[in-house]
Amino acid sequence: MTSPHSTRREALRALLREEHCDALVVSELLNIRYLTGFTGSNAALLVHAEDSPGNEDRTVFCTDGRYRTQSAEQVPDLRREIARACAEHLVGLAVQAPARALGFESHVVTVDGHAALAAAAADAELLRAPGLVERLRMIKDVGEVALLRAACDAADAALAQLLSSGGVRAGRSEMDVARELESLMRDHGADGPSFETIIAAGANSAIPHHRPTTAVLAAGDFVKMDFGALVGGYHSDMTRTVVLGEPATWQREVYELVSAAQAAGRAALTAGTASAAVDAAARQLIVDAGHGDHFLHGLGHGVGLEIHEAPGIGALSTGMLSAGAAVTVEPGVYLQGRGGVRIEDTLVVTDSTPELLTLTTKELLVV
Amino acid sequence: MTSPHSTRREALRALLREEHCDALVVSELLNIRYLTGFTGSNAALLVHAEDSPGNEDRTVFCTDGRYRTQSAEQVPDLRREIARACAEHLVGLAVQAPARALGFESHVVTVDGHAALAAAAADAELLRAPGLVERLRMIKDVGEVALLRAACDAADAALAQLLSSGGVRAGRSEMDVARELESLMRDHGADGPSFETIIAAGANSAIPHHRPTTAVLAAGDFVKMDFGALVGGYHSDMTRTVVLGEPATWQREVYELVSAAQAAGRAALTAGTASAAVDAAARQLIVDAGHGDHFLHGLGHGVGLEIHEAPGIGALSTGMLSAGAAVTVEPGVYLQGRGGVRIEDTLVVTDSTPELLTLTTKELLVV
Repeated sequence: MTSPHSTRREALRALLREEHCDALVVSELLNIRYLTGFTGSNAALLVHAEDSPGNEDRTVFCTDGRYRTQSAEQVPDLRREIARACAEHLVGLAVQAPARALGFESHVVTVDGHAALAAAAADAELLRAPGLVERLRMIKDVGEVALLRAACDAADAALAQLLSSGGVRAGRSEMDVARELESLMRDHGADGPSFETIIAAGANSAIPHHRPTTAVLAAGDFVKMDFGALVGGYHSDMTRTVVLGEPATWQREVYELVSAAQAAGRAALTAGTASAAVDAAARQLIVDAGHGDHFLHGLGHGVGLEIHEAPGIGALSTGMLSAGAAVTVEPGVYLQGRGGVRIEDTLVVTDSTPELLTLTTKELLVV
Repeated sequence: MTSPHSTRREALRALLREEHCDALVVSELLNIRYLTGFTGSNAALLVHAEDSPGNEDRTVFCTDGRYRTQSAEQVPDLRREIARACAEHLVGLAVQAPARALGFESHVVTVDGHAALAAAAADAELLRAPGLVERLRMIKDVGEVALLRAACDAADAALAQLLSSGGVRAGRSEMDVARELESLMRDHGADGPSFETIIAAGANSAIPHHRPTTAVLAAGDFVKMDFGALVGGYHSDMTRTVVLGEPATWQREVYELVSAAQAAGRAALTAGTASAAVDAAARQLIVDAGHGDHFLHGLGHGVGLEIHEAPGIGALSTGMLSAGAAVTVEPGVYLQGRGGVRIEDTLVVTDSTPELLTLTTKELLVV
């Protein structure tokens, strides 16, 4: 029986062979979770380029004594070692057999951490091998998409209940709305919010990453809500902007513009397209409308075990989108002192139309 | 007018002179917050050993364009630079004037990050300088203690309300109790919980770091509640264990033992005492009662801008306590399959009796 984790480790072995890396010591905890299912706070994993997918007898997991029971449950399929300094311990094991090129995660390991690894490596050479597991993590497998979908569902359901119960109304504070939305996400199956919920009303909606305050929602306000749910370690990310009462002409115009830009971004989101081209497809509409200076952040980002992960989708992004990448598309126009609109979905890239995971309407809602 | 931040920077300069470090590039965001008040997600700070405390014209703060306005408000007293790669930018500035020994935070900077700093440093040498600001952060100043006190007050008030309103009762799930306690902390002024609240009932109370589940509280259970509030960036940390209904004899005995050990730990907590001796003072009682194997974690830890920071208080700790350190004292006895008790306070070390910040009673509460 092949577990998703063993499939991912086999993919990592293929990548190690491509990179001429005999073995990799994985230090980043989210990478270890991805490769083994372990969720504790201290661990390392040793993966050799050459190993038998069937029994993986050269693959070693290490954690400390606090996680003896938990690791036996979560990582039953690998050899387990108990040590406090996990990565050093595994480097020590790896260099007993001659590993010519032993990689480490140089984007994660600190300079002091590296000195400890080098001491454990004795004469063996340590090779900088940054971002290998993150490259695999960009493309979500079926189980990951299922968790992302569940996270998006919890967020959709929470917002629906918040809106239908009149939770977004004049007189409430941003903080109260944020707390209720987070509570509703838990009611709908989330383990928690996937980041600190942004509720930004009136002029505050023009601040891209506003933190909710005691400011009170008032008639005529844009209310920008950027939030997500966490399910099984996976993050959803969605923004909707509603208006309290009849929208003014400028509000309709800004909303329609952002909505059109967001649709253009989604339309451009296909496997094989350069990330920068997706950004440009959305951004061009905003620039053409004279609001280029009011949209200064990137169009989107990857989402998964982290709320922000590869691939980035911005004007300066260099990569190309691949099928299976989970990303956000979130243009905004922010008019300082007046208000702003952002519309954001989480989607999975495919060879044709992306799969939309956040299902709440993007019509301008008047609440 | 001297701000707490400029006082802290002056203390850092004295430490740099002691360490023969001409200048330090600070990368750790909490250290930057401590030294400047900046709360954004990208920054670096350059501090020279020699600078005039009055105007600090050699001290440079750097952040990226997103934080132009915020940094002008939070760091009005320092020269500010805008760059995306903040630490590299400051290294580039530092080596323009001949800095013989330019330190960097080697416990925080990754191997890849160091390569980027070294490129920016050109011929200048970079010196590993780990943990200097953390050493200062161990000793809390008046403003920090005030924030810690406010955080502890919010936690005390929330627990009082939870208990007086019958929130801890048979039939409720651990998760429901945890959510209500977190919500009450916000009602009482917390910015949020300082970590994921632990509510552990019955046999679950024997798991030191149990995550709340849908398990339901039942008559006769120990209910262990480990939680804290976050106020202005500072964390409180407190554990209380109550019993649902009349306690059994074994429950009274375990509780009295942990209570006595906790009192012994607090009694030993004085400036000038070795941390290991404080741990031993509490642990000895538990060992003498035959429960040494049921108390396998350290006695306590420092608390401040992080929920766990220096100094550690454990059997293997090497340091000595200083007046002004904020720490927890939290022995526990965990009987697998039956239940466990932990009692934890947050206190400030003084030359005599420590200042107790968590004021909830430590009598065994029958709820």
